Amino acid sequence: MPVGTNATVKSMSPDEMKGLGAEILLSNTYHLYLRPGHEIIRQVGGLHRFMKWNGPLLTDSGGFQVFSLSPLRKISDGGVTFRSHLDGSTHFLTPELVMEIQGALGSDIAMVFDECTPYPATREYALNSLRLTTDWAGRCLKARKDQGRTQALFGIVQGGMYRDLRRQSAEELIEMDFDGYAIGGLSVGEPKGLMHETVNYTVPLLPEDKPRYLMGVGDLMDVLEAVAAGVDMFDCVMPTRNARNGTLFTGRGRISIKREEFRSDPAPLDPDCGCYTCRNFSRAYLRHLFMSREILSMRLNTLHNLHFYLEFFRKMRRAIEQGRFSSFRKAQTPVLRNNFNE
Amino acid sequence: MPVGTNATVKSMSPDEMKGLGAEILLSNTYHLYLRPGHEIIRQVGGLHRFMKWNGPLLTDSGGFQVFSLSPLRKISDGGVTFRSHLDGSTHFLTPELVMEIQGALGSDIAMVFDECTPYPATREYALNSLRLTTDWAGRCLKARKDQGRTQALFGIVQGGMYRDLRRQSAEELIEMDFDGYAIGGLSVGEPKGLMHETVNYTVPLLPEDKPRYLMGVGDLMDVLEAVAAGVDMFDCVMPTRNARNGTLFTGRGRISIKREEFRSDPAPLDPDCGCYTCRNFSRAYLRHLFMSREILSMRLNTLHNLHFYLEFFRKMRRAIEQGRFSSFRKAQTPVLRNNFNE
Repeated sequence: MPVGTNATVKSMSPDEMKGLGAEILLSNTYHLYLRPGHEIIRQVGGLHRFMKWNGPLLTDSGGFQVFSLSPLRKISDGGVTFRSHLDGSTHFLTPELVMEIQGALGSDIAMVFDECTPYPATREYALNSLRLTTDWAGRCLKARKDQGRTQALFGIVQGGMYRDLRRQSAEELIEMDFDGYAIGGLSVGEPKGLMHETVNYTVPLLPEDKPRYLMGVGDLMDVLEAVAAGVDMFDCVMPTRNARNGTLFTGRGRISIKREEFRSDPAPLDPDCGCYTCRNFSRAYLRHLFMSREILSMRLNTLHNLHFYLEFFRKMRRAIEQGRFSSFRKAQTPVLRNNFNE
Repeated sequence: MPVGTNATVKSMSPDEMKGLGAEILLSNTYHLYLRPGHEIIRQVGGLHRFMKWNGPLLTDSGGFQVFSLSPLRKISDGGVTFRSHLDGSTHFLTPELVMEIQGALGSDIAMVFDECTPYPATREYALNSLRLTTDWAGRCLKARKDQGRTQALFGIVQGGMYRDLRRQSAEELIEMDFDGYAIGGLSVGEPKGLMHETVNYTVPLLPEDKPRYLMGVGDLMDVLEAVAAGVDMFDCVMPTRNARNGTLFTGRGRISIKREEFRSDPAPLDPDCGCYTCRNFSRAYLRHLFMSREILSMRLNTLHNLHFYLEFFRKMRRAIEQGRFSSFRKAQTPVLRNNFNE
């Protein structure tokens, strides 16, 4: 899922997202609650209409943003008090309010309000965070019913890096019967090996017949690992944020477009790529736009990186359908290594 | 002519410019000389190919930018020494170099290197500036021949606000036989009335069978006046720059999209407008994008303002062709007043 934080995938129009073959977008409850406010989006007919996207939308619950963006976060059993990163104003989010907001937005898939365990965290912290997340997940389910919503609702497995806590979290959530299950609290600073271990351990705990979603992971090496483990869904700002910083993913490895060597290079960014950017523009032009801080630079770069990602996912799905995922994995590994190794 | 300073109409793709019906773009010699450098654009096949625009291009000569952007400007008979507004480096532009640069860019219409008279200016200053401009115009003509170019070349009438100097400038340039004639040195801070007077006086001095181009004027009230006087061509950053600042031109007057009143307004920006922005998005969404400083805000706003301008010019041309310009002028005046009055 490409990320459309403020009801827009940064620099892209909804028509372009459709043209790229994006099938579902993610948007951020935390951001839209603060600006423009969910009541406004409700008034103008919901998020799909607001941003003119008629495909599916998933909204996250704000739990991760409260954790990563707010300069203050005070957690109680009732909910979380936090400060807006925009104007410093104080807010109190509860599972019920988060469901109300996601209902007003009218996303197709809502996420439960969770408490994202930092890394590292003591067992005691992780256990308390898990206890809260389970409790809030129940309140979200109840709120969906009380509010008369029909949105799909996904639970989020927490438990930090503790296997038994991951298991406990998964079991408690499965008991409540969600429409899908996410793995939260990863890609928060832990070593890669530990992330893979946790994914490999957690995925088999989740029902095979419901979507399994690894939140916030977008390094395609990690994605490949996670898909091998059975993960079905991902979201990440990596393609879009990197694009705006001039970092581009190609079939021949990662390129920093600002490099001197591209100054008068007439070749396309990636000669094997069929995206609008590669079909029309030279590296020299893309470098010039980037150096001149032109808006078109962000557009063309974003378009290319999203094409790279979405093509990768399309190819991977086809490989899975045709029963040749492991040869796909083997063939893609060197390409991904050239793009995603630090 | 929409302005594509750095080889891009800010925020727009060339396909979108084509879709808007733009027939010719202007690009800035001064900017492209400094970055990426005309030699690089020559190496990758010229400006059309570089920016992927296959319609006509006009390049200005840099005379105005040296005057308006450089922190230092030292004029001699040979040329102008100036400092780059990008890195403070010192450069020396001559008529010959300016023709070399425009030749490397490969624009369809080149402009002579002129010395833009400031406002106010003494008669003595204006006369010297005129003398230089005429001299440099001759050197540009000669350089075009010596360099074996086939670009169209336009002369630029200077003379400040002095009628006899405007006449002298026009006569000297006509004698040299350019492909078109521009009126320079206007919209540099003089009162509107004085600009109109100077245009009204100068246009009839220029040949009717060659294009007459009023440089840098884009307030459509002024444009209407100038067209009545016989001007054929214009360029201005007004539609694009205003768009990025959230100022939008509509059939019902100018709108500042950040205004509180649009917070939950589901209506399109201009209900009578057929552009992509107005066909798809609400004022509430446009306000939200602007307040969130989203790139899509600049895109959608620019698209709308350019559509407004290009539609206006299309309608005006049709009115002229059908011999009903004065009724067009009368009918448009109240709309323009609501958009362009301070």
